[in-house]
Parts: sequence; C-alpha cells; structure tokens
Amino acid sequence: MATLAGGSGTSVRLKAGQRLRLTNTYGTQVVDTWCLPARDPSEYLSVEHTRRMLGRLFPRQGDDLFSNRRNPLLHIDRDTSNCRHDMLLACCDPWLYQYYKCAPGHANCHDNFLMALAADGIVASHVPNPVNFWMNVPVEDNDNIALRVPDSKPGDHLMIRALTDVIVVMSACPMDITPVNGADRKPRDVDYEIVNRDE
Amino acid sequence: MATLAGGSGTSVRLKAGQRLRLTNTYGTQVVDTWCLPARDPSEYLSVEHTRRMLGRLFPRQGDDLFSNRRNPLLHIDRDTSNCRHDMLLACCDPWLYQYYKCAPGHANCHDNFLMALAADGIVASHVPNPVNFWMNVPVEDNDNIALRVPDSKPGDHLMIRALTDVIVVMSACPMDITPVNGADRKPRDVDYEIVNRDE
Repeated sequence: MATLAGGSGTSVRLKAGQRLRLTNTYGTQVVDTWCLPARDPSEYLSVEHTRRMLGRLFPRQGDDLFSNRRNPLLHIDRDTSNCRHDMLLACCDPWLYQYYKCAPGHANCHDNFLMALAADGIVASHVPNPVNFWMNVPVEDNDNIALRVPDSKPGDHLMIRALTDVIVVMSACPMDITPVNGADRKPRDVDYEIVNRDE
Repeated sequence: MATLAGGSGTSVRLKAGQRLRLTNTYGTQVVDTWCLPARDPSEYLSVEHTRRMLGRLFPRQGDDLFSNRRNPLLHIDRDTSNCRHDMLLACCDPWLYQYYKCAPGHANCHDNFLMALAADGIVASHVPNPVNFWMNVPVEDNDNIALRVPDSKPGDHLMIRALTDVIVVMSACPMDITPVNGADRKPRDVDYEIVNRDE
C-alpha cells in the first residue's frame, strides 16, 4: 500500500483488469482523479461524455467512466462510501488561488496533474475536468451548486477497475480555503494500492 | 446579417465591447458555442470553471462566461428566450454517431469546431465542452439528465458581448437522431450578426 500525501499528486499505471483501491484514510479528503489510456494519452476520461452516457450528474458504484471518444476506461466496482462524487467542477488551479488572493505558488490539482504526467514522460495538451472523488458538491433546485464538507467516513474506499491499459492520475486536493476537505480545511493523506483480483 | 446553415460551423472574431446577436430563426436549433481569447487560443471558455464561478449549472441573461484561467470572456447581455442553455454535455462527435450506428462521415459539432478554427489558422489542442445554446437538457431530482425538444421560439435571440478580443466558434448542431433540434430531428439555419453598440 502506498500513501499519497495531502496536497500532492501522483500517477499509477494499471493493466486492463487491475484495480485501484483508493482509501479515504481520514474520511475528509477529496481526490481529483484523471485517466488516460496508455495507448494514446491524447484520449482522456471526460466527465462531459460520462454524464451523457450515464444520463446522470453523479457517478456511483457499478458505473463505467467514459473517454472523450466514448470508450469506457474505468469501472467503479465498489464504493463503500455511497457518497456523491463531483464531476461538475474544474480542479483547483493557480488562478483559483489567485482569485482567493493567496500568495503565488499555492499547491493545486492542476499543477499536480501536469507534474505527475511529466514524471511519466507525458506532456498533456490540457487539464481535463477530473472526477473529484468524495467531493461533496450537491445540486439543489436542479440548478444551484454548493461546496460542502465531505459525507465520507474514515476508511471509506473505492475499488476502481481498469477496462483497458490506463494511466490514472490522483491529486489529494490541496484546497484549504473552502471546506471541501473538511470543516478544518486541512488536506490529509490518502492510501492507494493496485490489486490484481477481487478481494 | 449572416446565415449559418443547419449542421455547419463557423467562427467570428469580436473585439472587446462588440456583440454577437445570435438568432434562433426557426426556434428549434441548438447552437454549440466555444470562445477563445484572440491573444492566446490555448485559453478557452470552460463550462467547468463557469459553473464554479456562477454557482449554477445553467447560464442566463446577465451572466459572465469564464475561461479555464477564470477570466470572464463573454457576457450574456440579452436572452429573449429565457430558456435553459446546456453546459453539461459534450458536443456531438464522430464517436457518438458511431455509437448510434450511423455511417461514417456524419456531420458533427466536434469536427465543425476544429474545421472552423483551422480556417482561421488555429490548430486546437482539444475540443472543450461547449455552451450549447438553447439545448434543453434539464436536470431532474438533482441528478438525472434528459434530452428534450427546445423550449425556444422562432426569432428568439441572444446578445453576447465580448469582454476581451475573442474568437467565437458556433456550430448549428447536426444532431438528427435525438430530438434536441426539434421533434422532427431536422437541423435548421440560424442567423448571426456582429453589432458595435446596443440596439
């Protein structure tokens, strides 16, 4: 098992059929997650295509997550949290922290994505809208959106299966201004592990 | 005034302060719309950033539309339709028509975007999720989405103001499988005009 430090990002490669167990160790951490097929990293997990294919705003256990070419890349085998996962909002980026008047250089998911891919030799053409696991952004009155503290519990985990050979990028979101990572606004570590068969 | 043929795309350049009047001549046509700042076409109107900045899923009269660097690019000065405009779904693309088992070569908004920019000398790195003006994709039960016939009326128009020098790409959506362009599933012409002052 590996630990992803709160506020940082990394990438893992999964072969088709392998699973990623992603554990929300402290129960309050949002994990921005992207996926690219290893065969062609210009294809990417696209939330705007996934919404269309699912007919829903929020992904859940049993769902496929689709690429911008409408190929299923990942399948959510298990979700012990049964929580809302956000696919509506862009990841945090240097311009968001600038908007919040933070000093330059604040860690952010946008740069975590680019750095994690660069470490794997990949130059991304853009930063797609990620799936923000455990990010609690409900829709109200079928239009308004809100930023809420997570509903997940310590130890909740997702089991995510690769449907083709993929690169998965994760960022334990560094957001410390809004309460999306808990009421105390403190990014925390999460754990992950690649598993080869159902456990 | 110019006419954009049903199913086709084009681009226009607006100087800061200029407005685009976009008219839904027959009342049933969805217009997928993108915007890039002229100074740097790697920046783009981002619906996932716009949702975050508006706190809503659906844009309306009086709203700014924001870029992936959280800059306001466009302002909706007027919307005579008072209709829902979709920002949740990817544009139609070759893979969607393949999914619907159409013959290869079906016109699509994805290729219309790339061709309109190429005609202006710009090679896009990817196709962003557009604003789909007049596309009637309501959210129900704060989660489910549906594809409906438009609520707009013949002659409804939008007046969209450029907040900086921009390139606007429009595609009169060629979709003829689902009823998003009317119950008869027939893409139709729309009209547009660049205006220099309020009229």
